[in-house]
Amino acid sequence: VSAAADSAATGALAIICGGGSFPFVVADAAARHGRRIVLFALNGFADRAAVARYPHHWIALGQAGRFFRLAHGEGCGDVVFIGAVTRPALWRVRLDLMTLRLLPRIVRMFRGGDNHLLTGIADVFHEQGMRLVGAHEVAPEILVPEGALGRHAPTAQERADIAHALALMAATGPFDIGQAVVVADHRVLAVEAAEGTDDMLARVAALRAAKRLNLPARRGVLVKAPKPGQERRLDLPSVGIHTVDGAARAGLAGIAVEAAGAITADLQQLIRAADAAGLFVFGARRNGSA
Amino acid sequence: VSAAADSAATGALAIICGGGSFPFVVADAAARHGRRIVLFALNGFADRAAVARYPHHWIALGQAGRFFRLAHGEGCGDVVFIGAVTRPALWRVRLDLMTLRLLPRIVRMFRGGDNHLLTGIADVFHEQGMRLVGAHEVAPEILVPEGALGRHAPTAQERADIAHALALMAATGPFDIGQAVVVADHRVLAVEAAEGTDDMLARVAALRAAKRLNLPARRGVLVKAPKPGQERRLDLPSVGIHTVDGAARAGLAGIAVEAAGAITADLQQLIRAADAAGLFVFGARRNGSA
Repeated sequence: VSAAADSAATGALAIICGGGSFPFVVADAAARHGRRIVLFALNGFADRAAVARYPHHWIALGQAGRFFRLAHGEGCGDVVFIGAVTRPALWRVRLDLMTLRLLPRIVRMFRGGDNHLLTGIADVFHEQGMRLVGAHEVAPEILVPEGALGRHAPTAQERADIAHALALMAATGPFDIGQAVVVADHRVLAVEAAEGTDDMLARVAALRAAKRLNLPARRGVLVKAPKPGQERRLDLPSVGIHTVDGAARAGLAGIAVEAAGAITADLQQLIRAADAAGLFVFGARRNGSA
Repeated sequence: VSAAADSAATGALAIICGGGSFPFVVADAAARHGRRIVLFALNGFADRAAVARYPHHWIALGQAGRFFRLAHGEGCGDVVFIGAVTRPALWRVRLDLMTLRLLPRIVRMFRGGDNHLLTGIADVFHEQGMRLVGAHEVAPEILVPEGALGRHAPTAQERADIAHALALMAATGPFDIGQAVVVADHRVLAVEAAEGTDDMLARVAALRAAKRLNLPARRGVLVKAPKPGQERRLDLPSVGIHTVDGAARAGLAGIAVEAAGAITADLQQLIRAADAAGLFVFGARRNGSA
């Protein structure tokens, strides 16, 4: 019994939607797999025009009570959380009663870094009788597969750099950082923390433009992978055509992710963009090979 | 017998000078400790006006043969390397015969990251009959001591953040990165790699200005420490008044270094700047306390 078929037994699927196109890719895929879906679109994050095409409710951050009331009413047993949500300014969040009761726990979660936050959220859903499932469990087509996916493949040196990057991310895992790093010729050029992948790639591009890296063009690899022990149901790293753009501007040779440990909204579009830019896209086994 | 007294037995001290004021602080201190000093000023990096006040020779990167010939002629047994040197564009380096012979080794050193590079340099000096000593060994007054050094002291939360940062840097040590990180409320905001501390602090300031960190003002700590196993004779992390400026602009509460594991050109000036900015300066024991 596959994860998708198994969860089909537990009623409708609630999809809590942040920004970007992922929520609709996941909704379409889940519907194709036979799930009844209900979108819970986050005010200020989810795409209004796209949301309107699906059965949906609008909710705000801080409305946990409203969400659970509506989700129970819709017969949702499973819940998926997908899409971009930046940490909100606290004064913008209107808290309902249930959220207020959860607040001390939420504050503790925020203080512990991303992993604590995400694991805590899964626990809250569980206590409310809902099962948190990963977007990749209801829509496995968003997972980046193994191997060289486009026309270009990493060299032996680049595969060694990918392995080096994955080893670094394994070491930084307990510290809740490092979903992405840039490595070139065994040298770690950049480590992502609070700034996000796009900013990190822009930094590498700027260092290169200022001739501070002393590296030939088309050298170096962006590597993204989940943290060890990361709550994969809530936050797998993602790549897309903007990642290809950023990596190309940073003068890199390619992009690698942990195979089945990163998601992409449209794999074929990702591969076409990478082929056009002359970059490889590589799904690495966790030990760095494929 | 102290390190300084011991090395006094081995003739004049060669000080290879990069940029900034450190070379002259070290030269003055070594002279005060009774050493005869000769500056070997790196063309394009060392401060011309300041160099002129000391016995000196000008050398260029790539002139290893010239350096050793002059240093042997001056009777230098010990050599200190101090001051900022950015990785040069290779076409700017004019190589003499000895450097050409060393070139394959130098290339291998560069490919291995900073630690390999620095250890390799120490080996080359040793083979030429010279002893590489740390700037802090001939001028111990540049080491940042232990404890809260100015008017302000870290809170318990900030001490915990400092310990968290030092643990992270211990984990990233084998990867030749992470001489500096920024941590706030147990959350790692930034990790330094190729960009340097100033750029990293500017990034935190930008994230804060864009309201992407969701942190109150005066929260967070910049922590600098040597990598575990780092070649301390060549590359201890440094802090100074520009570090205080950068940390203040990044909205941090203070700066911590590993006690006796970081250098500063003028400790009293550093403390005055931190006091004026309302920041703490803290020398932490390696386990995070002091």
